[in-house]
Amino acid sequence: MTDYIHRVQYYETDQMGVVHHSNHIRWMEEARISYLDSLGIGFVTLESRGIYSPVVGVECRYRRPAHFDERIRIQVELREYKGMHLRVEYKMIRVGDDELIATGSSTHCFTNTAGKPIALSKTHPDIHEILAAAVVPAEA
Amino acid sequence: MTDYIHRVQYYETDQMGVVHHSNHIRWMEEARISYLDSLGIGFVTLESRGIYSPVVGVECRYRRPAHFDERIRIQVELREYKGMHLRVEYKMIRVGDDELIATGSSTHCFTNTAGKPIALSKTHPDIHEILAAAVVPAEA
Amino acid sequence: MTDYIHRVQYYETDQMGVVHHSNHIRWMEEARISYLDSLGIGFVTLESRGIYSPVVGVECRYRRPAHFDERIRIQVELREYKGMHLRVEYKMIRVGDDELIATGSSTHCFTNTAGKPIALSKTHPDIHEILAAAVVPAEA
Amino acid sequence: MTDYIHRVQYYETDQMGVVHHSNHIRWMEEARISYLDSLGIGFVTLESRGIYSPVVGVECRYRRPAHFDERIRIQVELREYKGMHLRVEYKMIRVGDDELIATGSSTHCFTNTAGKPIALSKTHPDIHEILAAAVVPAEA
Repeated sequence: MTDYIHRVQYYETDQMGVVHHSNHIRWMEEARISYLDSLGIGFVTLESRGIYSPVVGVECRYRRPAHFDERIRIQVELREYKGMHLRVEYKMIRVGDDELIATGSSTHCFTNTAGKPIALSKTHPDIHEILAAAVVPAEA
Repeated sequence: MTDYIHRVQYYETDQMGVVHHSNHIRWMEEARISYLDSLGIGFVTLESRGIYSPVVGVECRYRRPAHFDERIRIQVELREYKGMHLRVEYKMIRVGDDELIATGSSTHCFTNTAGKPIALSKTHPDIHEILAAAVVPAEA
Repeated sequence: MTDYIHRVQYYETDQMGVVHHSNHIRWMEEARISYLDSLGIGFVTLESRGIYSPVVGVECRYRRPAHFDERIRIQVELREYKGMHLRVEYKMIRVGDDELIATGSSTHCFTNTAGKPIALSKTHPDIHEILAAAVVPAEA
Repeated sequence: MTDYIHRVQYYETDQMGVVHHSNHIRWMEEARISYLDSLGIGFVTLESRGIYSPVVGVECRYRRPAHFDERIRIQVELREYKGMHLRVEYKMIRVGDDELIATGSSTHCFTNTAGKPIALSKTHPDIHEILAAAVVPAEA
């Protein structure tokens, strides 16, 4: 589990006075990129090796509003990886009072730069090994 | 069912050359607002009557990439409404070749402007009636 | 002069209850793209012919706040074009009361897809002619 | 002079493969907020005392493209303050090679929460003093 801190920006608020819900989807990306960096397979590395990892699906549950200037700690866990797909889960927790702001998940496939799906186990076994080793199964 | 057309903007693309996945969440909001407008209960009306409808959850499945300058037709269906929660489903379809780009859903509650949950059936029965009548159950 | 209508989205507002100022920069792009389309040299055409037109500079003066759900009419004028640079000016006017919301301008150069500056008069004389003919000098 | 570091996010890129120019406007806001924080008069403080500081004008000159994952150091200088208006200047410099990415400025007024202009020297003399003392005149 790796934590990432996002500080809420003014331009992320809306006229309800809270963070607009589309931003949490972007925060998950920020945290996922930081997490993959920590594994040594960041986006820059992946793209330099001809790999894109487009988002196949995303979901988010909003528990409490986030506000301007708050720091949100985002916990990332790689929940599933089976060669073709990756599933990542997120917990967004406010720094200070530890309130759970939101939970989310994203699912990804892998493609070459032309957009064609690839199986990392065949095309990039070193990256495949790193991902396979990083999976944290859901608690029973 | 009401359709809304979103034209893909340049600033919605990312360096993969396709629309960044966070924008589909925003398109769902655009389409939902247009749909509620068509029912006579748009956001401006709701907020003027002291009602916010924050997003409680959102999900999106991405089927095909969307590209700059494409027109995306967004079909909106109010799938569930039970006084406290609203569930809306979306199909995003490319104009021209009718390809299904993405499907999604969003769930909403209702609050007063202080953020306290309200039951429209009690606080705003006229709006409650409009929503209850607009529900389209999922096909069997 | 060509007009473009932008409808203000909820996600464009901020906690001041008005449109966040970064969005006007995006609206200028929307209107510029629509304007170039009307000249037959839209971004898709330009990029398919190997031309990018990056923004070299931008400025915006905010006169009045814009609000959610308002329609903003954006007038575009191609003010200067001298083979290497393009200068476009914008007036953003609220539909309904004709209030001037903002004025802006953007300056652009032209590059090939590798980012190297090009002179359209030499590389793409047909596009050069269209731009040269479209210039509307500032009023005396 | 205070420096702020922004790390370029994937969702800030566009299909030219570089940061979309609207994001620099947002980075200036991030850096300005951080700068005002360092003076003890951050946005949260200002808004809690009933002060908004809307943007009256903004400009940006783009020198070199910024790319995903780069760190951009943003230097902020409060260039002018005369009771009613504030002018802030920015230099955006890539960490690593110290290349100047962009320069910009923003101009602000002060209003109460109802949007009415106020003169801080009269309404909030303590904040007025802090701003007046922070001005760094342009070099001769």
